[in-house]
Amino acid sequence: MNTSVPSSLTLDGTPMIEQLRQLGELGADREAGGRTRIALTDDERAGRDLVVRWMRELDLDVRVDRIGNIFGTLRSDDDGSQRPLMMGSHIDTVKSAGALEGCYGVLAGLAVVRAFRQAGIGPQRSITIGVFTNEEGIRYQPDMMGSLVYAGGLSVDAALNTIGIDGTRLGDELVRIGYAGDLEPRAIVPHEYLELHIEQGPILEAENICIGVVENLQGISWQQITVEGNANHAGTTPTRLRHDAGWAAAAVSTFLRELAVTTGTTLATIGMLRIEPNVINVIPSKAVFTVDLRDPDEQRLQDAERRLAEFLEEVAEKEGVKITNERLVRFEPVVFDAGLADAIEASAERMGFTHRRMTSGAGHDAQMIARIAPAAMIFVPSRGGISHNPREHTDDDQLIDGANVLLDVVLQLLAAK
Amino acid sequence: MNTSVPSSLTLDGTPMIEQLRQLGELGADREAGGRTRIALTDDERAGRDLVVRWMRELDLDVRVDRIGNIFGTLRSDDDGSQRPLMMGSHIDTVKSAGALEGCYGVLAGLAVVRAFRQAGIGPQRSITIGVFTNEEGIRYQPDMMGSLVYAGGLSVDAALNTIGIDGTRLGDELVRIGYAGDLEPRAIVPHEYLELHIEQGPILEAENICIGVVENLQGISWQQITVEGNANHAGTTPTRLRHDAGWAAAAVSTFLRELAVTTGTTLATIGMLRIEPNVINVIPSKAVFTVDLRDPDEQRLQDAERRLAEFLEEVAEKEGVKITNERLVRFEPVVFDAGLADAIEASAERMGFTHRRMTSGAGHDAQMIARIAPAAMIFVPSRGGISHNPREHTDDDQLIDGANVLLDVVLQLLAAK
Repeated sequence: MNTSVPSSLTLDGTPMIEQLRQLGELGADREAGGRTRIALTDDERAGRDLVVRWMRELDLDVRVDRIGNIFGTLRSDDDGSQRPLMMGSHIDTVKSAGALEGCYGVLAGLAVVRAFRQAGIGPQRSITIGVFTNEEGIRYQPDMMGSLVYAGGLSVDAALNTIGIDGTRLGDELVRIGYAGDLEPRAIVPHEYLELHIEQGPILEAENICIGVVENLQGISWQQITVEGNANHAGTTPTRLRHDAGWAAAAVSTFLRELAVTTGTTLATIGMLRIEPNVINVIPSKAVFTVDLRDPDEQRLQDAERRLAEFLEEVAEKEGVKITNERLVRFEPVVFDAGLADAIEASAERMGFTHRRMTSGAGHDAQMIARIAPAAMIFVPSRGGISHNPREHTDDDQLIDGANVLLDVVLQLLAAK
Repeated sequence: MNTSVPSSLTLDGTPMIEQLRQLGELGADREAGGRTRIALTDDERAGRDLVVRWMRELDLDVRVDRIGNIFGTLRSDDDGSQRPLMMGSHIDTVKSAGALEGCYGVLAGLAVVRAFRQAGIGPQRSITIGVFTNEEGIRYQPDMMGSLVYAGGLSVDAALNTIGIDGTRLGDELVRIGYAGDLEPRAIVPHEYLELHIEQGPILEAENICIGVVENLQGISWQQITVEGNANHAGTTPTRLRHDAGWAAAAVSTFLRELAVTTGTTLATIGMLRIEPNVINVIPSKAVFTVDLRDPDEQRLQDAERRLAEFLEEVAEKEGVKITNERLVRFEPVVFDAGLADAIEASAERMGFTHRRMTSGAGHDAQMIARIAPAAMIFVPSRGGISHNPREHTDDDQLIDGANVLLDVVLQLLAAK
């Protein structure tokens, strides 16, 4: 095998597009038009089996760790002396998902490896394609679990003992589907990690830009807030005597919008909300809702949390309601590796693609891997910013462009060995 | 029978309190602690049977009209020459209701009649106790149906053909429970109508007042509002690109609170609200909620409706969402008979009870009867203003005080024959 440094390789986009289509058929919801491949279900096992088959067709060394992460490695001749370059993402989905999210990063990694195979040359360092378990966190919490365990943020045993929303134990389901591997997580630690992903947001499309150079990832703060007031008659209770849990929730929503607009960087969303007793002529006695706060800067994220907490106190006092909150998820912002971001930008520039630096609004496995290795991400546009939805779409050409940038970055990184 | 005008009669509160207790046991929810006696169910039939038995024990002439309203009449000697004095209310309930609402007005009417029976004297004019069908409107819409039909606001046939939330036809259920009478509604038209009721609001208790002289009843405007936006990712969608249906609903809620505070007379409540897809990290694509607006003045109620409509247009424009609304219920304010209100006030004053003029915030059968006869209401305090709830409570003494005022008013009205 020729291991000389290739100045370029040719990436064949066709098999990648075809594999995205084939993988997208597993778990298909014929009615809703999407696919549902929740982690560790039979449908997701079928997806794993297919990806592993494709890895074996490329003659990769396939290994599975104890949390079910799959690693397919194209070995270099001097394997063992150096850490591999890793690319990857996940293949589990939300309910009624698109075909791209996660899968694209995995299958583009395979496309890069295929370019080496088709050219008949080996990489200067080993290349590993990682498929991380349970990124979506639909059935088992927390999300990004496989990469979190891999990066040492959660013990394997704790993860295996997670009980899902269907009452199953994660470890049992891993055994059931045949993906309880024996590799210790982090037996393979990458030299660097690249994740190619659709943006899942509207910015690249709105600005007509091909490539997003993702230099950081927002911090995420999720809390559930419960307001307890009094259920009184809508027709007989003077406004001043009301303890309206529904109004309190609304006041929080409009406050958060103002906060988002005035800061300019913080995003704030109330995605879930229910009120009780939910009767037309009864003042709500209870409101339970979630707040999703994000900011690329930890200090600003903390400011937003503090201002929200102060506002909750004000509202509780003003309306005579009791407000409690529970933290659900908290991730600090992640700054990706500056050298990797520079390399991505340089590749996009060299290849003549429009590009921009950007922040990832969503969470990704890359943020976990960034704890143990330099990491960065490459984004391609998402039509309408729509994701987690059957209407998720990126043009084939754009997907292939992204994979070509990924290949070019890989070549530059290997050349700089 | 002695038909001379009594200057006073003695009301025995004990049987009334005992009957409230007995009636309250029918349809009891042992777990929730309340009772559920939805119109025309088996449990409500049991309530009707019990009240009719009590009417017969007082030797009243019991008749049932085609919509199931029950009338028990204590005849005067010259019956037929003059219209009767009518008192009444309803005995159907919401789910998990208190024991007082509606039942109190019916059973206090029986207590007044009992005072005549126990004194062995007949009234100068006939006295009729009315029990109106389906005041609550839980199973069949609209609410206050029996009195609405009785007052000519809805045809008997339309009412009988109403299909309930359980798919049943009201007329069939009336036949099934044995209360499809043959009396034409309005065969008995009252000379005047009095309804004694718990306040279902906090005002009398807060001001430590015994008797509410209800001189008018708020207009009611119910609408259902639907906001349609876009479900985008909470982490990747910049605030300026959001079409957040949940935020739009919240903005309406805070707007309505401001409107209520600034007008001072309009009450505004969002009692029902749901958002879709109701996922923590997805911007709501849809919000459906109800708005309950009330004001004692029709012009001000119309102003509130107009200002809401204008605000909905502003929000739709600002957020890029589609807002539609559907009118559910609209009743104009009702001004009760001034002479009757004066009579109630005079009785309360003469009997040494603290009293105040007030507006009914809730809808009552009296507002329908007011279309065809002079009508007014008497309120007694509700603890905490709580109603439509197992915790609904008024002290026995307060209930008996109210019945005594009712008797005194009846005596004054009959004396003024």
